[in-house]
This record gives sequence, C-alpha cells and structure tokens, in this order.
Amino acid sequence: MADKRVYFFGGGKADGNAKMKELLGGKGANLAEMTSLGVPVPPGFTIATKVCSEYYKSGGKWPTGLADEVNKNLAKLEKAMNAKLGDPSKPLLVSVRSGAAVSMPGMMDSILNLGLNDEVIEGIIAKTGNARFAYDIYRRFIDMFGDVVMGCRHEYFEAKIDAAKKKAGVEVDSDLSAEQLKGVVEEYKKVYKKHVGSLFPQDGQTQLKHAIDAVLESWNAARAVKYRQLNNITGLLGTAVNVQAMVFGNMGDDCGTGVCFTRNPSTGQKEFYGEFLMNAQGEDVVAGIRTPIELTKLAKVMPHAYTQLTRLMTRLEKHYKDMQDMEFTIQEKKLYILQTRTGKRTAEAAIKIAVDMVNERLIPKKEAVMRVEPEQLDRLLHPHFDPKAKRGVVATGLPASPGAAVGQVVFTADVAEAWRDKGKKVILIREETSPEDIGGMDAAEGILTQRGGMTSHAAVVARGMGKPCVAGVVALNINYKAKKLNVGKLTIREGDWISLDGSTGEVMKGKLGTVEPKMSGDFERFMRICDRIRVLGVRTNADTPEDAKRAREFGAEGIGLCRTEHMFFEGERIWPVRQMILAADDYAAMLSELEAAEDAKAKKAIEKEYATAKKQFEGALKKLLPFQRDDFVGIFKAMAGLPVTVRLLDPPLHEFLPQDEASQKEMARRLGVKPAVVKAKVAQLHEFNPMLGHRGCRLAVTYPAIYRMQARAIIEAALKVRKGGKKVLPEIMIPLIGAVSELKLVKDEVVDEINAVFKEKKSKIAYLLGTMIEVPRAALTADEVAAEAEFFSFGTNDLTQMTMGFSRDDAGKFLGEYVNKGIYAADPFQSLDQTGVGKLVEMGTKLGRGVRKKLKVGICGEHGGEPASIDFCHRVGMNYVSCSPFRVPIARLAAAQSVVRNA
Amino acid sequence: MADKRVYFFGGGKADGNAKMKELLGGKGANLAEMTSLGVPVPPGFTIATKVCSEYYKSGGKWPTGLADEVNKNLAKLEKAMNAKLGDPSKPLLVSVRSGAAVSMPGMMDSILNLGLNDEVIEGIIAKTGNARFAYDIYRRFIDMFGDVVMGCRHEYFEAKIDAAKKKAGVEVDSDLSAEQLKGVVEEYKKVYKKHVGSLFPQDGQTQLKHAIDAVLESWNAARAVKYRQLNNITGLLGTAVNVQAMVFGNMGDDCGTGVCFTRNPSTGQKEFYGEFLMNAQGEDVVAGIRTPIELTKLAKVMPHAYTQLTRLMTRLEKHYKDMQDMEFTIQEKKLYILQTRTGKRTAEAAIKIAVDMVNERLIPKKEAVMRVEPEQLDRLLHPHFDPKAKRGVVATGLPASPGAAVGQVVFTADVAEAWRDKGKKVILIREETSPEDIGGMDAAEGILTQRGGMTSHAAVVARGMGKPCVAGVVALNINYKAKKLNVGKLTIREGDWISLDGSTGEVMKGKLGTVEPKMSGDFERFMRICDRIRVLGVRTNADTPEDAKRAREFGAEGIGLCRTEHMFFEGERIWPVRQMILAADDYAAMLSELEAAEDAKAKKAIEKEYATAKKQFEGALKKLLPFQRDDFVGIFKAMAGLPVTVRLLDPPLHEFLPQDEASQKEMARRLGVKPAVVKAKVAQLHEFNPMLGHRGCRLAVTYPAIYRMQARAIIEAALKVRKGGKKVLPEIMIPLIGAVSELKLVKDEVVDEINAVFKEKKSKIAYLLGTMIEVPRAALTADEVAAEAEFFSFGTNDLTQMTMGFSRDDAGKFLGEYVNKGIYAADPFQSLDQTGVGKLVEMGTKLGRGVRKKLKVGICGEHGGEPASIDFCHRVGMNYVSCSPFRVPIARLAAAQSVVRNA
Repeated sequence: MADKRVYFFGGGKADGNAKMKELLGGKGANLAEMTSLGVPVPPGFTIATKVCSEYYKSGGKWPTGLADEVNKNLAKLEKAMNAKLGDPSKPLLVSVRSGAAVSMPGMMDSILNLGLNDEVIEGIIAKTGNARFAYDIYRRFIDMFGDVVMGCRHEYFEAKIDAAKKKAGVEVDSDLSAEQLKGVVEEYKKVYKKHVGSLFPQDGQTQLKHAIDAVLESWNAARAVKYRQLNNITGLLGTAVNVQAMVFGNMGDDCGTGVCFTRNPSTGQKEFYGEFLMNAQGEDVVAGIRTPIELTKLAKVMPHAYTQLTRLMTRLEKHYKDMQDMEFTIQEKKLYILQTRTGKRTAEAAIKIAVDMVNERLIPKKEAVMRVEPEQLDRLLHPHFDPKAKRGVVATGLPASPGAAVGQVVFTADVAEAWRDKGKKVILIREETSPEDIGGMDAAEGILTQRGGMTSHAAVVARGMGKPCVAGVVALNINYKAKKLNVGKLTIREGDWISLDGSTGEVMKGKLGTVEPKMSGDFERFMRICDRIRVLGVRTNADTPEDAKRAREFGAEGIGLCRTEHMFFEGERIWPVRQMILAADDYAAMLSELEAAEDAKAKKAIEKEYATAKKQFEGALKKLLPFQRDDFVGIFKAMAGLPVTVRLLDPPLHEFLPQDEASQKEMARRLGVKPAVVKAKVAQLHEFNPMLGHRGCRLAVTYPAIYRMQARAIIEAALKVRKGGKKVLPEIMIPLIGAVSELKLVKDEVVDEINAVFKEKKSKIAYLLGTMIEVPRAALTADEVAAEAEFFSFGTNDLTQMTMGFSRDDAGKFLGEYVNKGIYAADPFQSLDQTGVGKLVEMGTKLGRGVRKKLKVGICGEHGGEPASIDFCHRVGMNYVSCSPFRVPIARLAAAQSVVRNA
Repeated sequence: MADKRVYFFGGGKADGNAKMKELLGGKGANLAEMTSLGVPVPPGFTIATKVCSEYYKSGGKWPTGLADEVNKNLAKLEKAMNAKLGDPSKPLLVSVRSGAAVSMPGMMDSILNLGLNDEVIEGIIAKTGNARFAYDIYRRFIDMFGDVVMGCRHEYFEAKIDAAKKKAGVEVDSDLSAEQLKGVVEEYKKVYKKHVGSLFPQDGQTQLKHAIDAVLESWNAARAVKYRQLNNITGLLGTAVNVQAMVFGNMGDDCGTGVCFTRNPSTGQKEFYGEFLMNAQGEDVVAGIRTPIELTKLAKVMPHAYTQLTRLMTRLEKHYKDMQDMEFTIQEKKLYILQTRTGKRTAEAAIKIAVDMVNERLIPKKEAVMRVEPEQLDRLLHPHFDPKAKRGVVATGLPASPGAAVGQVVFTADVAEAWRDKGKKVILIREETSPEDIGGMDAAEGILTQRGGMTSHAAVVARGMGKPCVAGVVALNINYKAKKLNVGKLTIREGDWISLDGSTGEVMKGKLGTVEPKMSGDFERFMRICDRIRVLGVRTNADTPEDAKRAREFGAEGIGLCRTEHMFFEGERIWPVRQMILAADDYAAMLSELEAAEDAKAKKAIEKEYATAKKQFEGALKKLLPFQRDDFVGIFKAMAGLPVTVRLLDPPLHEFLPQDEASQKEMARRLGVKPAVVKAKVAQLHEFNPMLGHRGCRLAVTYPAIYRMQARAIIEAALKVRKGGKKVLPEIMIPLIGAVSELKLVKDEVVDEINAVFKEKKSKIAYLLGTMIEVPRAALTADEVAAEAEFFSFGTNDLTQMTMGFSRDDAGKFLGEYVNKGIYAADPFQSLDQTGVGKLVEMGTKLGRGVRKKLKVGICGEHGGEPASIDFCHRVGMNYVSCSPFRVPIARLAAAQSVVRNA
C-alpha cells in the first residue's frame, strides 16, 4: 500500500476518500468520496501527488512501477466503461486534470476528449451518427493538446478556424458544418506539425503519457510557483493527476451540462440555484455565447434528471456540511456529477448560510463562525461601486480605507471645507496629509494621496472616519499651484469628478454609480454568535462622540484609544495651542537659566521674563481646558458604562505649527508677534526624525503643565457626566514611555493634578492610569514598567516602526519589494510581525503580568482590526483589541475564530 | 555594640578602623586607622553615619543616648588631652567636620577652634603669651561658627575686618595688632547678635551641639543633594561627624602646617612632594597670601619633624598601598598628621605610579590597572590648552571630541579646504555637518556645530579623525550668507580666531596656547600590563589607511568597523555615485514595469529604456570599483595580519545628493541632465524619518549591484594585497539586517559575486560574512539570523535609537533634561543603556551563540570606547569591542579593569 501511486474510483467504490487531500489533491479526494457515496461520477483514477515530487527528484522521469499501475488502472477503467482507449468500435475518451491539496491557479487546467484519433472519430460518427459533434470534439482536442501539452499556441489554431468561418461566411463556430469542421481538423493537424515538429499523435497511450507529463510539469510553471510564493504555500508534495472517463453534454438534445449551488451564493437563501445548457459542453456555459437556462427549468425539460440532481444536492450538502458548488453533465438522459466543492459566496450569503445552518443544526456555532472570512465583512459595512459599472481606472494605489467615494477634486483642506459647505461632494487629493488637513478630510467623500502607505496619516485617519482612502498613488504628479494633477498623459483639474475605490485602490475618472450596504438581521444574529464564543474584548479607536456612537452600534465594548491631539486642531482651538507652543520653550529654557543664574540681578531679570512666559503658557492652557473638557464630556456620554482609554498628547509640537510662509505670517499676525518669531520657532522645533523625537510623554517631562491640563479636563468631565447619572470609566494612558522612571515622573504630576481636582470638587471617581507600550525598551523592561502602570496598551504601529526600523511614512517605497521578495510574509504595518514585534509583545505581556497579575493588556495599533494579528493577541492572552469603528465587527468575528482555531 | 554611635580614637588606640567607612565615613575611618598605626593624630571621636539617618527619621532630634555617648567621649578626649572644654586654665579646642563614606562636596566642611569664649581666650593668652594669636583664632571662630552653623553670612563679618584694616591703614589681616583684633572680635559679636538674633554662645557644650547639628543638616543641603543626584550616589546612611582636638601651626615660629604627597602627583616620580608654611594655619596655605615653601626645605628648618614626617609618609604609603595626600601640623615642634587619603594625580602620574608600584612589588598587576581612570587617558592622547592660559569662554556646547583646537573661523567645507591649502589653520563652523563636509572637516583643526549631540555626524567623524569637536552649541546664530555668527551680543566673522576645547565643550575667542601630549615609556609598559589581563579584543573603527595605521600604533587588534560610505564622497568619486543614483531608480522601477507589461510593444519600449538605465547604473558602478578597490588595498596593507570588518554601504542615497539649489544645478550640469531632474530626484528620495528609511541592506535589496561592486572591490583588493605577501583577513558586514530572510537574500548576491571573482582570478581567499545587529528585530530573532551570519557586530548607536525611540540628531534637545531628572542615569548614546538596550544585546548574543557556538560577537557603536559599556561587553562575553583610534588605549585599559572587577 505504501507503494501505491494510483487510486481508482468508479462503480460505487473508490480507493481513496475525502480525507486524502494531501495525497490525492482536492479534486481526486472529492471524486473518490463522491464515488463511495454512490454519486454517479464518471469513473477514473488519480495519480497521487507524491508522484509529482518523485518526478522532480528524478529529473522528470516516471518512478518505476508507475507505468504499470497506470496501465492496470486504465484497464480497470476500460472495463468499467466497457470501452477501450483507441478502439473505434467502443472508444474510451478521458479527461486529464491537475489537482493539488490546495486549490491553485496557474497550473494546467484540463485536457478533454483525450483518446481521439482519425480512426476513433469514425467509430464515434458511426455510434452517434453525429459527425458534426465528432469533428468538433476532435478539433477541440487537437487545439487543447497542442496548446496545453505541447506548447503550440492557441492563436495558431484560432487563426485557422477563423479562416474557415470567413470562408464559410458564418459568425460562430457552431454554424460550421461537419464537413467544414473536418477541414478544420486537417488544418489543425498541419498547425500542430509545423509548430510541434511532429505529427499529431494518433496513439491514445502516447497522448495520455504526454498529458500526464504536462500536468506534472505545470506544477513548476512560473505562474504556479509565483502563486505559491505570493500565498506562502509550502510543504506540498505536488499536484495529483486525475484521469477520468469523458461524458458528453453535447451529443444531442438528450444531453446537457450545468453548474449548481445547494444554496444561493449571492443571498445565501436556501434554494437550489444554478444554470444549464442543453446539448453543450462545459466550456459553452462559460463562453457565454448561448444564454444558460435557470436550473429550476430543468425540472420541465428532464424531470427525472432534475429530481435526481436535487436529491444529490441535498445529500452532498448534508455530507459535506457546507454549501456545494457542483458541475454536472447529462449524457443521453443520464446524470453525471463531475465535481463538487465548497461554493464561494458573497459576504451576505456567507452570513446567512452560517446562521441558517446553525438553526438547521447542520453545524455547531463554533463551526459557523469559521464560515465567514473576517475581511469579507468590510464590504458589508461600506458602500461599494455598482459591480456592473464600467471602470475607467486611471491609476492604482494602496487600498487604504475601504468603500466607494465619488466627488469633485480639490487640492487643499480649506477648499474641501468651503465646497462641502456649499453642498458639493469633494475628493481631497494631497501629496500626503497632516493633522492640519483633518477638517478637509472630514469634509471630503474620500481621500487620495500620492505618498504614504497603509498606515500613513491619511490612511489611519480615513479608516477611523470610515471614509474611503486610496494612498500612495505614486503615478500622480500634483501641481498645487496650478490646481491640477497629471497621471500619465491625463490631466485632472480642480472640480473634475473622480471616483475612488478604497477597497481595491483604484482611481477612476468620472462618476461611478455606488451601492449602499445593507445589514440584515442575520448579520446581528451572526455577530451574537461570535460574541458568545470569543474571549477577547473588542474596543474601538475613537476621538469624537460621533465615532464613539458609531463604534458602539457596531458592538464596541469601550474605547481603547481616544487620541487627544485631534482635539487640538478643531476650529479656534489651534490658536491657544500655538500660543502655548510659542511660550512653552522660553518657559523651559528660562527655568534652567534661572537655576544657573549666579547673581541676584540676573536672577531677577530672568524671573520676570519667566513669569511672563509662564503666564502666557498657562493662559493658553487655561483656554484649552474647557474645550478638552467638553470633548471628554461628549465621549464619556456616548460610551456611558463602558471604559474609555484616553491617550494624553502624543505628537511633536511642530505638527501644530504651519509649515508654509503665508500661514506662518497669519499665525504671527493673530498672536501678535513678528513673523520671524514664528519662523524661528518652526526652525527650532524642526526634527530630523520626528518619529523618534520630542513627543509623547517626553513633552510632559519638559512641560508637565500640558498633561496636567489634560488630566484635569478628563477628571472634571468624568465627574460632570457621572453627576448626570451616567457611569464613567476613565482610563488615562501615557504614551511613548521608555522607562519606569519616566512613567513615574509623569504619572506623579498627573496624579497630583487629579487629586487637586478631587479636592476642589469634593468628589472622587475611580480611574485607571496606564501606559502605551510602543517603545521597544518599554516592552523589554515591562516588569519594571508594570510596577507603575495599571494597564498596558500595545501601540503596535510605533512598536513596529522601532522594532523593525521602518518609518511607516517612508517604508511604502520599498516594503512592497520586501513582501514580493518574500523577506516578510506581509506588510508588517498591516499584519503584525509575530516573530519579531510579536516577541516583544509577548515578552512585555508576560513580564508585566509577572509583576502585576491582573494587568489589563490590550492593543490599540492598526493591527487590532486585522484578523491574523487578532489571533496573535488572543494567543498572547490579551484582554482586548481596539480598532477603528468600521473594523469592530471584523474584530468580533476574528476573535471568535481565534477561540475555535486555538482550541 | 550594635547601639554604639560614637567611636573614639587617640593614644594609639581607636574603636574603628579603615574598613568601617560605611559607618564612620572616609575621614573618620582613616583617623581611626592612623591612630591604631601609631601615627601622631590629634585624638577625637567620630559620631557614626547611622546617627544622621536617625536624625532625619526623627525630624531632627538626637537619638536617645547619643548625648550621653558624646559626653562620655568628650570626657575621654579631655582626659587624653589633659584639657577641658571651656576651662580657661587648660582649654580644649576642637574641630568639627563632616565626612561621609564617599567624598562629597556640598556638605559642611569644618568648624575650627570650637571651645573658644571670652574667658578661654584669656587663658590662652596667659598660656601662650600670644594675644595676637588668641584674638585671631577667636575672630575666625566667630566668623566660621556664625556663617557655617548659624547662617550669618561671611560678608557681614568680612565688612568689619575690612573696616578695621582701613582704619588701621594696613593691607593684610596679619598686620592687625592684637588690640585691633580684639576690637574686631567685639565687632564680630555684634554682627552675630544682629543677624542671628542672640548672643554668641559662650558655652562650649552649646557650641558643640550646634556644630554637630549643622554637620547633620548639611547632609541634606541643596548642593549636597544635587551632587548625590548628579553622581548617582545612593544607599548611604548619611554623614559622620568628626570631633577632634585642635592643634595649631600658628602658635609661633616653632609651629607650621603643610600638605605632602608620598609621590609627585604631577609626574608620578617617587619623591617626597609637598609644601609648608611656618607659623600658619591650614587655610593660610590655601589662601595664597604667603608663598609656601617646598617640603624638602623642612629638613633644614626642623630636621626632626622632617625625618619623622618622611618616615610616616613611607609607612602610610606602604600601609595603604597607594600614593598618599597628607595634611600635617607642627605645634611647638611636635608633628601631627591631620589627614591622609589617596592622592589625586594626573594621568601621567597615575600611569607612572601604577607601573612603578608593580615593579616595587607593592601592588599586583591586577591592582595596577585599577589605578588609572580610563577617561584620564584621553587627555594624554590629545593636545590640550595650557592650563595657565586665561579662557574667555563665549559659549559652551557638548564635549564631542576631545582635544584643543585653534584656528580661523570658516563656514563651509570648501573654504576650509581652500584656506588649509594656503597653509591656514581653520575651525569649521556648521549648523550641522553632513557627509558632504568630510573634506572640510579633514582640513579643519576643529569642528564646531550648532546642532547635534555626542553622536551626531560631526561628533562621530571628528572622534574618528581625532579632531577636537564641540557640538550642539545652541547659543550660536549662524548666518552663512553674511559669513558670520552671533552668540549673545558677540559677532564672530570668517577669519576671526577662536579656540575650541573638545574636552570641556568650551568655545573661546582668540588664540589660546596649547600643550602637546607626551607619551612615556611607562605608558607602553602600562598598556602591556592591561593587554596581559584583558580578555576582550580591542579593534578600531577606521575608514582610511591613515586612521588604521594610527589605531594600530595605539594597539588596535583589527578593524571592527570600516565604513565604506566615506569613500563615496572623496574627490571626484561623488560624480559616478550621483550618476548611479540618478539611474538607479529608473532601473528598479522599470524592472517591475517590465514584469507587469502585457503587450509585446510596451515590453520592448521598456526593455530599451531599462537597458539604457542599466548601462548608466552599471557604468557608474564600474567607475567606482577601482576607487573602492584601492581604498581597501590601502586599509588591508595597514592592517596586514589583522582582521578588517568592512561594512557595506549604509546611508540613504539622498545623503549623496546636494541639498541646496546651486549645487543641484552644478550636479545637473556635470551629469548632463536638466536641473529639474536632479530636483525631482532629491524630492523623490526625501524621507520623513531617514533614520528608519531606505538605507543599509535595504539598498541592496533594491539594488543588489551596489553590494556586488563592493564585495568585488573587497575581494579583489584582498587577493592583490596577499599577492604582495601580506596576510589579509577580510570580514564583510551587512548592515541594518532585520530578518534572516533579508540577510540570506543579500548574502546570496554577495557570495555569488565573490565566487565570480574567485573564478576570474583563479584564486581564493578565506573571508567571513556577518551582519550588524542594530535593528531590535535582528536581536530578537538572533537565533534565526545566526544561521546565516558568521559574526555579529552590535551597532549600538542605531540599536539605541530604535530600542529607546530616540533620534540621536534630535534627542540632544531633551536628553539633558532626562539625565538631570534622573530618568536615565547617563546619556544612552554615550554610555550603553544596559537595562534596556543591553537586554537586547545580551539576548542577541545568547540566541546567536545558541545556534552557532563559535559566533564571533563584537560591538562597533560609539559605546565600544566607553568604559562602563566595555565592562558590559565583557560581562556579556563578547569577543571584542571596536572604537575610534584615539579611544583604543582607553578600551584596552577598560577591558583589563573589567576582568578585575568581574573576577
């Protein structure tokens, strides 16, 4: 048995079964399984995948004994069919197909009608009385064999039939007469001879040997190798080869062929679904020349076959416990099933089928959650383009935030807002976006950038807003001055309409029709199934009450990351922020000057300057306080009863200053200083590597008053909302911590301010104080850090940047190449690098919990919404993941799947 | 005994000894030790350090029993001295001094002559017949007690004696008569009363209680606390209090006082060294009003005391086994030793003394290497300013590269080179330097930058060149256009002379005199002692044959880091480099276009373009090959017989392009392209965080031909030099590796090229191929990486940047604050952060060696020359450290010390 290389199936018995995919490939295993089930499958045999590996090891030779085994099985097949390869009186025709354990495009598909030759043709004509049919399958066979097996290009054959049609004055192949087709056969043989260099082989055995070799060779065809590389498919032995008796749907009017689904693959409805063509071969259904007929109509045409088919459908679905996609052929009223496999389906259908099958007790809940791809859900939550609309793609970038957007082009955030206010729909196009563009991004239907990757500012913010975004369209050549862009030879100007597909990264000229998403009751039911299974909590990243509300509707169980810097930009607030920045530096510099001052006079002068700067600095912060407090009031209300993690100010201060000269002048005017002062401040705050610069808690080390103001705003808001009768669970998060001493210092300031608020208000509220773990050092020393932190939230965006040494703003230029060349399996900003960054996450979690057993651990990087990363978080034992509102359902599903997968 | 708080010493017996520093402080322990040795020390007692901690715990109260113990010991002291506190007939006077286990400025120094009052004075006059002496010590005591113990400022007293001198018409204190001094005493008492608010205490016990309290309080004086913070001194109980009988060197002409060293502290010569003053108190020696007399002359003045002193010096040095710094007083011909301690010495002296003491068999070799501070050596290797020269410091920055430099100011590298060629000495001043400035830096005597930290480009390159550099002088305001700079109100123009002290960070106007370093035979001998002890290898970071030669002279055992990018800048080479960069991108872009091209025509067009770009790209590389090869020939020759680690190209390509418009135009002209092309390329290569950008091996992933050229140059050079009869040990190092798959990919290219060279030349040479570990991920996955690497070299500069999230170009702005606030004990770019970054280094080493037992591990970051970091490398078990040439001796010493310290 160990030496067995060929597996027979036929007559209700099979050497193999469905579990032998590894050895027989998916198709072969399924053919065997169906045969054993008594499904009418044309008999045949499967050459096992291990032959493929032996074939390559020996440099392209058949292993000893294989030829014998093939011959024996061929004889068995001939007996089963009562026919013989090459025998004109009772000819056996076979198909030869590839089939690996994993479905894999790029390999040889199939050779049909193998066994035909000049003599057999005569036999078939004699037997069927249908010369047209005979010559048609013969010429198809020569073409297919020549093209697929011998590498003689299909075009050469195609030219000949085109000539014949022209000569005959007909349009379609099927209008050629038997005689004319016979001529085509002769022409095909000549083409074969000319390009292959030998006569078309008349011997069936030779044909079969060549076809089997061709299947084996196709395993290492460039396309197949590339596909395996791209999809990281390794460890397979090779492809199996399936040799199966032919049945014909095109032998006459009592013949036909079709495909059917056990449930509707578009809607998931429990109904028989499919289509068929009478007197046709499979490829005719695909070719679309004749319009196929709806499956249910088969009941009228061939009631017996229909009844038999529906019974088989029910049976196979029950057997495989999943919706089946089947191919069938009726030859002279006899039904044959050629293939059954798990049917592909839309997201909507996947959900309905999963929910229905649970209700039907066909599958358990844990199985149901595995039946929907988390990424599929994305499509359900965003509008998308009408699939029938013609797409005039002018450029392609990264699918940075899913959904469809249509609007008029604008190039600045200001114009975007102005046009939106006039009721226009706009698409904001920028080389890159910065926090200054937030208003414009909010005003736009979608965002398009020339630079930046999947986790660029534009991408992150757009996903948070649920707005379509295509990022990193390098082909764009933007001219802000001229308000236009060039892409190739095309020019797009301000006001022109374009359409963005954020799910594919495509940019299209003009207005494409869109389809709004529909969410069914099944969706809710499915999500509840997920919730019952999953262990991981799912929170959301939300900075506004609107986002918080939306995320809550999507099932978020709290906010895992509420960024406060966006609040610094809105409307008039930017002015006190900028005033603070202008004063901030003097304030700090003077403090140290003061300490160093030696004589009393110098001291006094500095003290005076210091007092002025301090007043300005604190005055600016005082102006910000009510804004921040109101923001938090809104968010706490929206998230009443659920925890809200607020991250204190994170970005470097220079992000709040205008970069162009005109805006700098405007700032100077508004704040009553000389333009040179603003310019100097911008220059002074310039950083070579802002990612690694003066930001996060480092700002609070220099300017403790900023975090104090924020802590006050949070606690005052929490007390206020609680007074209104709502439960508030604030969690204050300090970003960019690298050392416990740093956390301690900043935390002490924050706690001191909070205690002051408690004292003033004569009221207290419970809160947690924790830190983001995003600097590798913090993860490495998490045992120390945990002593001062009540929770950890892994900021895997920055942790990835620092651990791998990639700037996410720049790495887009070469990360694609890294993935293509297989250095990393995926873009580490999209899917967590589990080996490297993950090691730090695991280490940080373990070290932290070693010191503080009940340490709450979550993730708030972009990875919190990505299924593979969520699986990792589950395995590490985190308490929750946090992701953008629109990814909350995806995370709920992925978290449930992780439980099943890791059971 | 556990309750014992006060330790007596006197009469040849002592309760304590030298080992009880923790409890008695350094001074107290030493006084006890000397007493036991029979050294004539004035008797006294020491209040233990634990009292200080009890005092603070109880809020400033003496612990129960202390007063009794003090009284008992005072009685013992009175008995030993046959004198009594406050007894005019036989008065006891004492000194009260602080003294912790670690020498610590900032605490109270001493109160002398305690016990004086109006009655005692009369007794002293009666006893000594010296009223002038009596009133002088009385007025000194009131001043000292008022100032130090009661906080009545010294100036108030000073004003009174000044008035008295004016009135008496004399210049110096000693010209005041007894009567006049008596008047001063009265004035002093009034001052005391006015500012302290009570009469000057006449009771000796009260004086003593106050003085002891003052010593205890001084432990927490602001200056003392700050000193402990800055020097990271923790875990001490507090200060001890030493109460000791006074002896007087100023009681007449048979009295005197002095300091002496058992060896010459400047040169290390074995000779008695010191100075003394007859009829004087210690402070007179320090005050410098009278010129002290050379010690040897004491032999003539008081032969007995001199003989006794020299015997004691010899004895104490033998006892303590180190050069002693002693204070002595002769009272009425009787010699007293007041203090002995290990003497401070110059680097030169330290080395000589260590070597001599080994030869004298006084100390073992392992002890000798501990006697020189590694950092002291730095001064020996660089010229320094004449210590007598007056320094007009105009600004201070970071001491980025040690040594003294004097030159005329220039603001551009070009001018620096031009002026040097005319024979001028120049100081190059830049806001920051870039690789373009190398030529100018080489031409300059020293470098001064406005921005950047201790590991900025300027600092690193300057240290490599052994040139003084002061970096990050933020006070500078440079105006390149006007060729001048402002610092405060001062303007410095091109051509002005300035002086830089790279060891202190000081910038001075004008030309200061310098002193050249001298290296003695003892230096060589000392280094050989170090070499015999150390386990760590010491290599150098060197990019040129000159540097390599110099480092070898300093004892380098190979090159640990030879950067190749500097070679890309020199002279005419920059042009092919720039040509390559212009072509490089098209080349890569086209390759992927080519892959994507669908129809044959498009394919052909791209193929043609591709061929052109490729030709240009490879043509440029071909031009570079001979330059690189020659560079390596020079370096391999200089390092014949020793390993040379060559790092393949590391910086991002944009560093090779000019940033200002004029230079971009020049580049366009030279390379025959439009200026817009250059501008576009600069824009395209711009990165937000270049530190995390497209550089290191990432360049080779995109453009394998670059590393291929470099590998070829290295191997061709190695073969050539070997042909010349010299041994070459090339080690090729691939930088910025993050994953083993990345290393494998790049390594395969490099090895393929090397094998091609072997084939062409029909000759082979052994080489190693390894990687820099500088991306945290590489350290985390070192077990994987080691499978492909024959050596690891920790690039701790970048590893620190990424692990801690600090950009070394930017962090200078706030890292000082981090160190001041105690978040990090030291600047992590200067001294390796052992807790965080060190954890990765240790993990990387262990994981790597777990897979490849004999993995060679080294460090090539700046830390390789820093003693504490070297100690860490020793403990981790590295094979070698690598540092800049001038730090090689420091590293050799530090490595030896590590062996002793960790034995």
